[in-house]
Amino acid sequence: MTQTHTDGAFHVFDTTLRDGAQMEGLRYSVADKLAVAELLDEFGVDYIEGGWPGAIPSDTEFFARAADELNFKHAKLVAFAMTRRAGTTAAEDPGFQALLDSRAPVLCLVAKSDVRHVEQALRTTPEENLAMIVDSVRHGREHDREVFIDCEHFFDGFRHDPVYATLVVRTALEAGAEAVVLCDTNGGRIPSDITEAITDLRERLAVDLAPERIRLGMHAQNDTGCAVANTLAAVQAGVMHVQGTANGYGERPGNADIFSVIANLETKLGMRVLPDGCLEKMTRISHAIAEIANLAPDEHAPYVGHAAFAHKAGIHASAIKADPALYNHVDPVVVGNDMRILVTEMAGRASVELKGRELGIDLSGDREALDRITKRVKELESKGWSFEAADASFELLVRDEVEGGLPRPFTLDTYRVIVDHDPAGHSVAEATVRLDVDGARVIATAQGNGPVNALDAALRKALSERHPKLASLALTDFKVRILAGSTGTDAVTRVLITMSDGGSEWTTVGAAPNLIEASWNALAEGLTYGLNRQ
Amino acid sequence: MTQTHTDGAFHVFDTTLRDGAQMEGLRYSVADKLAVAELLDEFGVDYIEGGWPGAIPSDTEFFARAADELNFKHAKLVAFAMTRRAGTTAAEDPGFQALLDSRAPVLCLVAKSDVRHVEQALRTTPEENLAMIVDSVRHGREHDREVFIDCEHFFDGFRHDPVYATLVVRTALEAGAEAVVLCDTNGGRIPSDITEAITDLRERLAVDLAPERIRLGMHAQNDTGCAVANTLAAVQAGVMHVQGTANGYGERPGNADIFSVIANLETKLGMRVLPDGCLEKMTRISHAIAEIANLAPDEHAPYVGHAAFAHKAGIHASAIKADPALYNHVDPVVVGNDMRILVTEMAGRASVELKGRELGIDLSGDREALDRITKRVKELESKGWSFEAADASFELLVRDEVEGGLPRPFTLDTYRVIVDHDPAGHSVAEATVRLDVDGARVIATAQGNGPVNALDAALRKALSERHPKLASLALTDFKVRILAGSTGTDAVTRVLITMSDGGSEWTTVGAAPNLIEASWNALAEGLTYGLNRQ
Repeated sequence: MTQTHTDGAFHVFDTTLRDGAQMEGLRYSVADKLAVAELLDEFGVDYIEGGWPGAIPSDTEFFARAADELNFKHAKLVAFAMTRRAGTTAAEDPGFQALLDSRAPVLCLVAKSDVRHVEQALRTTPEENLAMIVDSVRHGREHDREVFIDCEHFFDGFRHDPVYATLVVRTALEAGAEAVVLCDTNGGRIPSDITEAITDLRERLAVDLAPERIRLGMHAQNDTGCAVANTLAAVQAGVMHVQGTANGYGERPGNADIFSVIANLETKLGMRVLPDGCLEKMTRISHAIAEIANLAPDEHAPYVGHAAFAHKAGIHASAIKADPALYNHVDPVVVGNDMRILVTEMAGRASVELKGRELGIDLSGDREALDRITKRVKELESKGWSFEAADASFELLVRDEVEGGLPRPFTLDTYRVIVDHDPAGHSVAEATVRLDVDGARVIATAQGNGPVNALDAALRKALSERHPKLASLALTDFKVRILAGSTGTDAVTRVLITMSDGGSEWTTVGAAPNLIEASWNALAEGLTYGLNRQ
Repeated sequence: MTQTHTDGAFHVFDTTLRDGAQMEGLRYSVADKLAVAELLDEFGVDYIEGGWPGAIPSDTEFFARAADELNFKHAKLVAFAMTRRAGTTAAEDPGFQALLDSRAPVLCLVAKSDVRHVEQALRTTPEENLAMIVDSVRHGREHDREVFIDCEHFFDGFRHDPVYATLVVRTALEAGAEAVVLCDTNGGRIPSDITEAITDLRERLAVDLAPERIRLGMHAQNDTGCAVANTLAAVQAGVMHVQGTANGYGERPGNADIFSVIANLETKLGMRVLPDGCLEKMTRISHAIAEIANLAPDEHAPYVGHAAFAHKAGIHASAIKADPALYNHVDPVVVGNDMRILVTEMAGRASVELKGRELGIDLSGDREALDRITKRVKELESKGWSFEAADASFELLVRDEVEGGLPRPFTLDTYRVIVDHDPAGHSVAEATVRLDVDGARVIATAQGNGPVNALDAALRKALSERHPKLASLALTDFKVRILAGSTGTDAVTRVLITMSDGGSEWTTVGAAPNLIEASWNALAEGLTYGLNRQ
């Protein structure tokens, strides 16, 4: 059932930079948008909708720079706008002229297909709405543009008045639209609705149109949690164009996640919708776009999440080892992701061995080391450590047992942290650390916003002379969790710290009844790991 | 097409505390689990799966305490385990005995339905697997338990060997299982797969079983991003039992989000699956469980997310105001959420008024106080406060604005917290507070396991003479979260503290870049509230 890549016959249409940019709290600079567009082209989508030139000044600038600076390998750039305004012509509409001025080779024009929106939002007649579509499509075609029509609120409109909604679609197709995209704008549909509506629509269109002229697309929003499934249902009902956004970014609960849509089309329906070799870039591209958007990648995202193929080993470790295909729904490598075995309190020797192999350490020949490591993991976990998310701490522990340990750039003698709240209501934190650094006694004091920030600053100050590389290690995430809620402020605290050297990231853990002590452990291990890594 | 609540005929089966607790990085204390179970019962689910007694020590403790302390209004508590081991009897299997000892009235037993897993993971024969199911179901029934069978990897097993997978389901139903739950354990299915498999299965079962005996359930994982849609497809194909977790928590990309599933069943398929008046609690229950799990609520979650009904007003503001139903796929009030228009600051006043009414304070007559409170809430929330789970802090704030405030038993002058780590590796925390207590200057110093514990001890010591009742107020929970959007150790920290006077509990909040300062705020408000309450 596997096909070859269907060039031109099926469209992957990305709207990360237009509809996806509507997400609350998300702001791209023009440079951000150029970088995202390049990533999307590298990923192999067919169309990249870049924004609304003429209406949004930074989008006008984006298209101007894109025309000069971007050189897509595969994709075509799309400019979005409304069909021309009521009571004028496309040639005379300044909004439409801005669209042509953008130099984008493809236009995507939003049109009303729900007669209630025609009357209440556009405040015009159903007939004029049709004339706006025809005139706009023809004007775009006359200027050598490919033109798509997005039918806003299509599914509500079709339910309310199927005759008019069908007329809108047919009119756009007959006027020369490349495809007409059916939008579930308010996102209220579930897959059975989509199947039913598209099947009905196709039958109505088939009265006047030859099958090859019925070119439909799907644009789903995620308000029922079904955007990906709705898009698949539409493809199975015959659409040949799917819209979505990177990581499902978008207004309200977001748009259909284009990564999940593509991975499902390719691995579940056996379609080839990307050029060869592109699907395996998916995890990397997803995370890179999240970084540009300045949003934490969703750890639990299907296919591309850090946890998407993470298994708690426990009792099934040996079975997973024997046949991972029984536990993964697809081979993670296909989408550029990895399988991970989580080391948990239930972990036995088998999962420690498996985890070691992931880190490139073969423990299969050293039964005694394996026993020591397993025992130590269990001991630490009973005290509140957790290695599930702290690969770097786990690796330090393993290397300590098998190779005598990584070199330690420093050992702690003492630290003192003071937090003062003064009568004026200001608080300040100060930390002093006394370390042994390669045999020398070093003392440093620093202030910070809070106690851990001060400790981090003092530690870096103490090490900066001997380890100038330290300046390139950034602390990127700091998580605190209180364990065993029943015992209040004297409960055990677990701290997870993530550091980055710009290229890769690693996470360390510390646990203690004293939050400062737990933070110290995670900080010290994070810097030790980072300095050894370089 | 709307029905009345189908008591008993349709099951909502929640597995937040069992399968959902497998989520990477998530750890509940026993007290957390008891609190989540109470919320789920209040929400009106039919079954609450609490864990695996006998296998996980904290789950054993949860069931013991649940039997003594929980008094469900609607739900039944479910204990999870495997069917009995191969080569023994259920009566002789100590794992099975632990299940009965849990005193849970309902058992959910996981069984293999994929013959490859029977052989490779269980390492037994297909026949013994069937015997294990029959023996386990009967033994549970003989001890007056309702028994469910979860068929692990059902959809893979059915595709690989439909005859054996069907035999497993039929065997379990014939042995007396209340329902057999079809699990997409590795989460690799899309809705059309589910429809096809369940339709085929039902035809195969109908050969031997009367229609009313074919009682099936659905358990979906979200690895294709289709867990909610798969669950809906299963209901449309005839299952009468759905499993899911609060907010979709679970391993890898998680489980079917029970909130989205229920909202779709009720508002899209016209079913009544919750008792009357429960659906509108959904948003609040979702956020409260997120707080207990110490995970940020997903702003973009369908139905319950803060952004689920947020509209950028833009050009359509007046159209939205005239007829919100054209822009919202359901009325947000139905699920206890609000519509928000992002450009206005109008949102909030209505919910502050509603919240005040909940606390017994009528704000409807005092427009100015309502405005002051709303403004103050927004101000504090922009600095990291969150009142969703901190009713006591909210009440203090409201009473300050309408009645001149509750009496303050003390005001802070200064505090100092010192944490020392000595050369022997021991760490100690010491706090000194200087307060004004009813006009008198009081100073007290105390030690603790960590900085917040020391601060708590010093504060209590300073107040103990004037407020002896303080001894009866216990600090029962302490949660710390580093807020997203800010990075590293200088990010904003939010602290939630729960206190109890033995009878009732209350929660307060503090937020600041300095963790100690945030903790102080929450501590001071918690004691102030507690002393006023008595």
